[in-house]
Amino acid sequence: MQCITLTTDFGQRDGFVGIMKGVILTRAPRARVLDITHDLPPGDVRAAAFVLMNAHRYFPAGTVHVAVVDPGVGGPRRALVARTPRAFYVGPDNGVLSWALSQDPPLEARWIENPKLFLHPVSQTFHGRDVFAPVAAYLCRGGQFSRVGPKAHDWIRLPQPGPLRLSPGVAAGEILYVDRFGNAITNLSVKRSPEAVPCIEGAFVVKKRSSIRFPARAFYGAVAPGRPVAVPGSSGFWELAIHGGSAAEKHKLRPGDPVEWRSEQRGHDCPAGPGQQ
Amino acid sequence: MQCITLTTDFGQRDGFVGIMKGVILTRAPRARVLDITHDLPPGDVRAAAFVLMNAHRYFPAGTVHVAVVDPGVGGPRRALVARTPRAFYVGPDNGVLSWALSQDPPLEARWIENPKLFLHPVSQTFHGRDVFAPVAAYLCRGGQFSRVGPKAHDWIRLPQPGPLRLSPGVAAGEILYVDRFGNAITNLSVKRSPEAVPCIEGAFVVKKRSSIRFPARAFYGAVAPGRPVAVPGSSGFWELAIHGGSAAEKHKLRPGDPVEWRSEQRGHDCPAGPGQQ
Amino acid sequence: MQCITLTTDFGQRDGFVGIMKGVILTRAPRARVLDITHDLPPGDVRAAAFVLMNAHRYFPAGTVHVAVVDPGVGGPRRALVARTPRAFYVGPDNGVLSWALSQDPPLEARWIENPKLFLHPVSQTFHGRDVFAPVAAYLCRGGQFSRVGPKAHDWIRLPQPGPLRLSPGVAAGEILYVDRFGNAITNLSVKRSPEAVPCIEGAFVVKKRSSIRFPARAFYGAVAPGRPVAVPGSSGFWELAIHGGSAAEKHKLRPGDPVEWRSEQRGHDCPAGPGQQ
Repeated sequence: MQCITLTTDFGQRDGFVGIMKGVILTRAPRARVLDITHDLPPGDVRAAAFVLMNAHRYFPAGTVHVAVVDPGVGGPRRALVARTPRAFYVGPDNGVLSWALSQDPPLEARWIENPKLFLHPVSQTFHGRDVFAPVAAYLCRGGQFSRVGPKAHDWIRLPQPGPLRLSPGVAAGEILYVDRFGNAITNLSVKRSPEAVPCIEGAFVVKKRSSIRFPARAFYGAVAPGRPVAVPGSSGFWELAIHGGSAAEKHKLRPGDPVEWRSEQRGHDCPAGPGQQ
Repeated sequence: MQCITLTTDFGQRDGFVGIMKGVILTRAPRARVLDITHDLPPGDVRAAAFVLMNAHRYFPAGTVHVAVVDPGVGGPRRALVARTPRAFYVGPDNGVLSWALSQDPPLEARWIENPKLFLHPVSQTFHGRDVFAPVAAYLCRGGQFSRVGPKAHDWIRLPQPGPLRLSPGVAAGEILYVDRFGNAITNLSVKRSPEAVPCIEGAFVVKKRSSIRFPARAFYGAVAPGRPVAVPGSSGFWELAIHGGSAAEKHKLRPGDPVEWRSEQRGHDCPAGPGQQ
Repeated sequence: MQCITLTTDFGQRDGFVGIMKGVILTRAPRARVLDITHDLPPGDVRAAAFVLMNAHRYFPAGTVHVAVVDPGVGGPRRALVARTPRAFYVGPDNGVLSWALSQDPPLEARWIENPKLFLHPVSQTFHGRDVFAPVAAYLCRGGQFSRVGPKAHDWIRLPQPGPLRLSPGVAAGEILYVDRFGNAITNLSVKRSPEAVPCIEGAFVVKKRSSIRFPARAFYGAVAPGRPVAVPGSSGFWELAIHGGSAAEKHKLRPGDPVEWRSEQRGHDCPAGPGQQ
């Protein structure tokens, strides 16, 4: 009962995901196929890399993670498979796997090149069906990793989502991702236990036409409804939110917007600000 | 092969649901995890309560129903688990479980308080992952109910979706829920067999700027395309519809809008109007 | 571990799909239920027929395909079940199954009429729950096909999605379907191996207010970003696309729009144009 996860931008309207599952179950009838997401913005490799980075660690050991956000399908881009102590990763070589792989470093990676594993004829537009699903099923059934293709070393790494620069009491970062609630997830990490958070004194500031200040608090409801707040997010990064509303909608926040953390006052027993541990 | 259902407002874009499933399958590898919905309006506890009330009875005995529409996450709200003769229910104590529990009354309810069952560190924003998924997996594996926490009695009940007042030949109610087809589901119950419906003589009226009359019929196609019609809905309530269109869009219907049933003429062999049995 | 697939326009918001799965698993606890799509435009039988036609062949032998796009529910329309050498098909008799059945011709078809197989009381609005899910579960468990109802012969066939007329070097067709990426899938088939495609010389032209020319190429990236291109689609038909964009949005393409293929120049070693084999 090995698991396979799917992270795509295929949407759920056109049957592409169902077809991938059909291909997988035809070849690995006992696989558990789990959706991470299919509703990423079309072609948004960075969003896919972010979601997979947050999700991979919550699945059973031996899971095969398949990520197909693949605007270069049919062209010269290569296809990658990686084996780590915990999991397998399968996808196009465009960086989509790279943030997960930086957290869960591979023992070995290979280019997907063995046509015997593919579904034929291989289309030029849907490698999710013809290449990635069959390879995932092959690995899920315990297929030999080395048969997938030659060793890979120089796969594409997206720039890491760390803070851009640091100084005492100030950290400058950016918005990485906006979720469906309109919470804006920054690249400023929460390296503290949740217990410690309430003693934070500081705020996050986003400069759009005017400055918007999101005071750091332990949870959404620590401010009045409709008020901005920054909370330690479940993915390990600070999130900018509106209690009971959408921060992204209200303040037009988008991935790439710069965010500044400013320490405002801090007790002796408080840990350092974000990005400073 | 015990089932776990999920009813959330997490959407399907950001990987939250996939993460919950990963947590469940890591702890209960043989669980069947089924989606009821993830696309409820963010924070709409009433819509979640309605959907779960309609759905719970169609799942196998012993199913664990998890509902996470949880605007108070991280704050002082409690978390509830209930055991009934047919199922388990898991979720925040904000009323989201209460309509299902009024139909399927618990043998026992408890507050979720045993941190040994949680995923650590527990975030302040994602109890679906850290609290509710692990507790559901624990129950699915046959864990001891009493270990979850102390007995609960005074959980939050949302007001019941019954009609507001009744008089002979007239029933006043409201719109409870609008589905994706734009059908407006009322709180006026259909306590009759489908066979009896065709003899109904009467109509439902919604007063917006002007009055809109939805004549009661047995099925959508009993009126011409584009015409309003009220039909006995699959959830046991009367639904206001446009044959082949969206009543909600055309007439701007919303949850909370008042609806009146008016008996217009009725043969001797016809059952009484809605809400009058 | 027999599979059941679901193709509906129920959306994923209201719990209808979850309820169908609950009904199936209550009656066939070991079934694998797979979603093909639930997000078809409400009532769009043709889109459902297209998606099922593309998907059915990728599922394991013995799969039960259930398609419920059913604007006539509750009215006099009949319900159909078909048995082919590879699969079962279950749905309303409105053409939704007909394109799949023309590719995978039935050994036998029957009208669904045996009320002993249904969930009671049978609603007039949700046969997905009360009729189609129980019948699918029955077939999945190996139930006797002939018990479903009497033999069916004259089920409704939608007109076939072939090209409208042909002449040497020119083929006239139409847009069949627009996918979530905004690619417009035509009814002009790609009856060639992918290897042969690069030698195509020709283009597809859609006449809206002005003519839009989509040159035939092997893959999206064979033209510059933002440029129109026609590629051999994964469903076996030519697709009109914008590299990195949405052709449907940019050029307001819709199902039914006429498309013309024009051979422009072709080497001796090239196969014939679309629709001409």
